[in-house]
Amino acid sequence: MSEHPRGTDEFDLIERIRARVVARDDVMLGIGDDAAIVQVPAGQQLVIATDTLNAGVHFPADTAPADIGWKALAVNLSDLAAMAAQPAWCTLSLSLPHADAAWLDAFLDGFLDLAAQHRVTLVGGDTTRGPPSICVTVHGLVAPGRALRRDGARVGDEVWVSGTLGDAAGGLAQWRAGGAIDASLRARLDRPTPRICTGLALAEVAHAGIDVSDGLLADLGHICRASDVGAQVELARLPVSAALRAAYAESERHALQATGGDDYELCFTTPPQARATIGRIAAETGTALTRIGRIVAGSGVQAFTAAGTAWIPDRAGYAHFAG
Amino acid sequence: MSEHPRGTDEFDLIERIRARVVARDDVMLGIGDDAAIVQVPAGQQLVIATDTLNAGVHFPADTAPADIGWKALAVNLSDLAAMAAQPAWCTLSLSLPHADAAWLDAFLDGFLDLAAQHRVTLVGGDTTRGPPSICVTVHGLVAPGRALRRDGARVGDEVWVSGTLGDAAGGLAQWRAGGAIDASLRARLDRPTPRICTGLALAEVAHAGIDVSDGLLADLGHICRASDVGAQVELARLPVSAALRAAYAESERHALQATGGDDYELCFTTPPQARATIGRIAAETGTALTRIGRIVAGSGVQAFTAAGTAWIPDRAGYAHFAG
Repeated sequence: MSEHPRGTDEFDLIERIRARVVARDDVMLGIGDDAAIVQVPAGQQLVIATDTLNAGVHFPADTAPADIGWKALAVNLSDLAAMAAQPAWCTLSLSLPHADAAWLDAFLDGFLDLAAQHRVTLVGGDTTRGPPSICVTVHGLVAPGRALRRDGARVGDEVWVSGTLGDAAGGLAQWRAGGAIDASLRARLDRPTPRICTGLALAEVAHAGIDVSDGLLADLGHICRASDVGAQVELARLPVSAALRAAYAESERHALQATGGDDYELCFTTPPQARATIGRIAAETGTALTRIGRIVAGSGVQAFTAAGTAWIPDRAGYAHFAG
Repeated sequence: MSEHPRGTDEFDLIERIRARVVARDDVMLGIGDDAAIVQVPAGQQLVIATDTLNAGVHFPADTAPADIGWKALAVNLSDLAAMAAQPAWCTLSLSLPHADAAWLDAFLDGFLDLAAQHRVTLVGGDTTRGPPSICVTVHGLVAPGRALRRDGARVGDEVWVSGTLGDAAGGLAQWRAGGAIDASLRARLDRPTPRICTGLALAEVAHAGIDVSDGLLADLGHICRASDVGAQVELARLPVSAALRAAYAESERHALQATGGDDYELCFTTPPQARATIGRIAAETGTALTRIGRIVAGSGVQAFTAAGTAWIPDRAGYAHFAG
């Protein structure tokens, strides 16, 4: 509703974005019209995910623009990974308090670096004035029936997780405390790795999957609710990075690993006879895959210490709205 | 990054949304997993548009939640109309300062009313904490080669526009002035009509099209730049509503009609021999279609008064970032 002379910054920003986008054969019409047109290959279904990042809510206010760009796309690609979908296209809706070409260029450095890694083409979007906010919608492809859903876990399945858990939450806790921040933990907070290849490979064997964005226990809880089952997790089995182990005592660490958000690892369930296949996928994708528990009859997620006693978290996952 | 007990408001909001969504046969997996899965029909291409509305930038702060919901979807559907695409699915990413179920329910009243009119199914999205902001991505379908693009205008084409122009800007100007606001002008600001049927019908005859969101002269300028042509527009031909005529003197009115944003009418170009077809489309879709000028060689858009003198606006369209 703000009225200004034409030839303005908004169009300049869009042109800056358009100039850096790489082509894909299946993009019939990219940035610059009222909408984009793409060709979904025959025999493929379209997978759609969207996530918004707001300053101070989803990333610390001091986050570098390139890291914001990376993370805005990464959290969306992580949703495609959790569906075992092959990424294809994305849109970007960017709200900024004022047109800032240097900020945008740095943002695009991170965003487009990650896009190039997964051959995702930015096909459209808009730039608007407002508090800093980034809304990304990603589009992926999957063969019918091959998607990894939340509702397929079965009693007797084993529960697995990729990578390590708690690093992002550990880095965030250090940032909040105001002291020294371990660089590798902060990097896990700022530059999560969407597990695309791992997700695609798991489609052949996993019964259910989700990405860990709200915290392991919360996200595994989503699988349990959707699948009408329960789960048991052993805290001692949760994969831990050397940096997290060095930075936190065990009890704090377990809380970060079990309930910290922003890991963007994959949590999935498989039948016990799939262990060899899981090992092969871990080797082929260069991603650690760790068995952490099992699916049981009932409901809810129970965590146990090495001594076999039930562990009750102070909090199990976070929600953006509460409080 | 805010950490809270589970069982929280964010999931409650998503459940409130999911409970009200209507089904479509081509939605394989809707709200509730990491992503949605849809089936694009064979022989159709996918059309994608995304637009964000921020409070105080794209709608007055006192706008009713139901109107915000309507408008957030309408401005996106308008992009599909301008492409001559058939709407199919959408996602919604909603940022709110705090979870407010009553606000959300009212928002959904407007959003889902419009969605139902066009058989658009909400397939996913997210809710996050932050300043009020609504990001919608819409997906439509078009047969290959049938989309209405900006780059097809040809010298000799006639320029047309749907509906009436300037109403939304007239209502906004009254709101800003703080005095009485004409209800029909305010309704045009709050509840724009995406010209879906008209856009679909125009695919058979129009060379180029765009929706009027930034102002007629600015948006027609986008067609001219994309098509490498110029345009001439006669101010006296611009369609005007009775409400706008009653509320503003002619010179103010012309400025609102030529440069006011938020109309979400279609501006399109056709060969002169298409007049009869345009008349038929207007009758069949119940939408006024008015010839307002022509495409000429050169570049830029010139506006002329009834006396034939060039008219120079104080401003030609608005951009969200400038200033």
